[in-house]
This record gives sequence, structure tokens and C-alpha cells, in this order.
Amino acid sequence: MLKLLGIAGGTASGKTTIVRELMETLGDKGQLIGLDAYYLPFSDMNYEERTRQNYDHPSSVDMDRLYRDLLELKKGKAVDIPVYDYVNYTRSDRTHHISPQGVLIIEGLFALYDPRIRELFDLSVYIQADADERLIRRIGRDMKSRGRSLDSILKQYKKTVKPMHEAFVEPSKRHADIILPGGALNRRGVELLKSHVRAMIG
Amino acid sequence: MLKLLGIAGGTASGKTTIVRELMETLGDKGQLIGLDAYYLPFSDMNYEERTRQNYDHPSSVDMDRLYRDLLELKKGKAVDIPVYDYVNYTRSDRTHHISPQGVLIIEGLFALYDPRIRELFDLSVYIQADADERLIRRIGRDMKSRGRSLDSILKQYKKTVKPMHEAFVEPSKRHADIILPGGALNRRGVELLKSHVRAMIG
Repeated sequence: MLKLLGIAGGTASGKTTIVRELMETLGDKGQLIGLDAYYLPFSDMNYEERTRQNYDHPSSVDMDRLYRDLLELKKGKAVDIPVYDYVNYTRSDRTHHISPQGVLIIEGLFALYDPRIRELFDLSVYIQADADERLIRRIGRDMKSRGRSLDSILKQYKKTVKPMHEAFVEPSKRHADIILPGGALNRRGVELLKSHVRAMIG
Repeated sequence: MLKLLGIAGGTASGKTTIVRELMETLGDKGQLIGLDAYYLPFSDMNYEERTRQNYDHPSSVDMDRLYRDLLELKKGKAVDIPVYDYVNYTRSDRTHHISPQGVLIIEGLFALYDPRIRELFDLSVYIQADADERLIRRIGRDMKSRGRSLDSILKQYKKTVKPMHEAFVEPSKRHADIILPGGALNRRGVELLKSHVRAMIG
């Protein structure tokens, strides 16, 4: 029986690190859907318009398709989920196969946003970290690995990341079964989660 | 090897209900210390003065003795902990025997307040519930089981319960390993906790 584990949290809260650890724990029993895969293609727009979309808003995510895909999986059917093309800001032609077994982690800013989706989860977790610590990590990450200037990072942070976090991400916390404060540095919280996913696969 | 499990949370957040379930899960492997047992005796005061103390402030709790007792237990020694006399607002002559085995739950508003104490815990949990829902439960409880008037309940709530919660209880949340939102009604969170304490004794 497939188990669904939803993991939400703000930008740079430690979601990716924790998910990586959980996936290692699960081994071949683990599968992962990042919500970014479900960004809408915005196929009716040109490239310039697509880059200007607010991807920190939940309406940029194809929640209907994610819901349908999770329902199919819950029914025991395999699905081919979309793969996002970050270079062209649209959905790629490729898909990624997900089979209805083991533990499927659904991770992203808005993993607990849609009530239809979060009701399908067998366990919902919110990764909590202070806004300033998340900002510090985001600056480090975006400057290093994405080569962006500090000025552009902070502008985007103030313009969309922070207001969208406060409007849509933070309020979804109350729908979590458990909240992990301190992000990936909360070792005992992460270990508890790992022992729970171990129990999920029996 | 004795395991210590700290459980904090605001007034009427569901701590007692959750602790009762955990104690049932633990059976004869479970022991419980309520922080109220460690209220200071204030032996130099008369009854009138003792009733006027602010028992919603952490300085009303004998944290030094609690710390010493937990240290002894951690060293494998049994301890006799104080028993509080709620009628006379002071420490009673009786004691309660705690043996250094199984899982010992330490529950109370200030269970995560003292850094020396929370560092001894093998797991720290904060029970999170909305302030208005906690107030509703507190009114019901204090009117029914303690026969108090609504007016006196709300006066005390505004004068000490709320400000002390905001100053000392709520901020201790960040020291928890996990936060349980929704109190005892969060069934999946409570079940996760139960399966974890089962693993602690297994």
C-alpha cells in the first residue's frame, strides 16, 4: 500500500536536506515528487511573460493535475508526472514514472496548501525555520549556485518570496500533523521522522 | 536506561490528555512528573500571601530541585519527588517515589523553560493550540470542575495566564524537537508520538 508523506516549509527551511535523508532511509522504497515539477506550462505566453510570472504564488502550481495524479496512485495505478524545464520556464516533453508502492514524498512550499491534496497524505510535516535564517541560507544558495547578485536576491525576496510566504506557506503550518522547528539542524526531530518512515515501510 | 520525555504547552492545550494516552501506551514502563509538584513551598509566607503568588511565572517552580532530581535519575538513582498540597498552597510532607527506569514524562507549562532541564530530555515536545481554543477549554474546565465564576477566570487569564504564556511558555516552543499543532485533537500527531514512545521502551 502506497503511503503519502507531505513535506512543506518556507524557502531554504531545510526541506531538501531532510527529504534527502528520508529518501536515503527509504532506499528503493522511496519516491519523490517536488511540487516544482507541477509548475504550470503557461504555454499561451511567450518566454518573457513566463519569466515574469509569480512562481512564489500557489496559483503557479497545477494543483488539479497533482491531485488527479495522487488519486490515481492511491487507487494503485502508476502515473507519469510532468518534468519542468527550468531553462525555458515551461513544462518539458519528458515525464517521470511514479509507481504506486512504498512511500511517496510530496515536497514543496505549497505541499500543505490545497485541502484536497493534504487530505490524501498519510502524514503531513511542516519544516519550521526562522525567517532570518532562511534568508541567510537563500542568499548563500542563490549567490553561489545560481550566480545572482545580492541586490536581485533581496529585491525578489521582498517583492514576492516574503509576502507569499506569509500569505500561503506559513498559514498552512496549522494543517501539519507535526512541525519540525529548526529545520535540518534539528537532529532529534529528523531522526524521529526517519524512524517513522522506516515504520511506514514496515 | 531511563528515557526522559519533556512535554510543554500552554494552559488547556491538551497536555494532560496527550500525557494520559502516552502513559496508557507505556503501561508499567511509564512514570510521570507534573511540574506543579515542584511549586515552591513559600514556607516563610502566610497562607494569604501564598495564594497571591503568581503561579503562572516560572520562578514559582523549584527548577533547581527538579534539575537535581532528574540528574540523579539519569545517574540511575531513585528519587523521592515532592507532592504539592493544593489546599494549603504549599509543599506537602509526602513524597512520590520515582525509579530510574522506563520512560519518565516531565509535563508542564515550563517543561522546556530551563535550559539545564531541557538538555536532559531525550525528546522534547511542545503541544500547540490556538489561544482562543485554549481559553474556551480553560473556561469550561475552571467553571465546571473548580466552580469558579466566568469573571474571575477571565480576570486571572488577562492578568497572569496570557502575559506569562507569551513571555515564558510560547517562546520555549523553539526548543522543542517536535511541535504538535492542534493539541489532543491532532490524532495523527498523537499516534506518531505514541509509536515513538513505544520504540523508546522497545
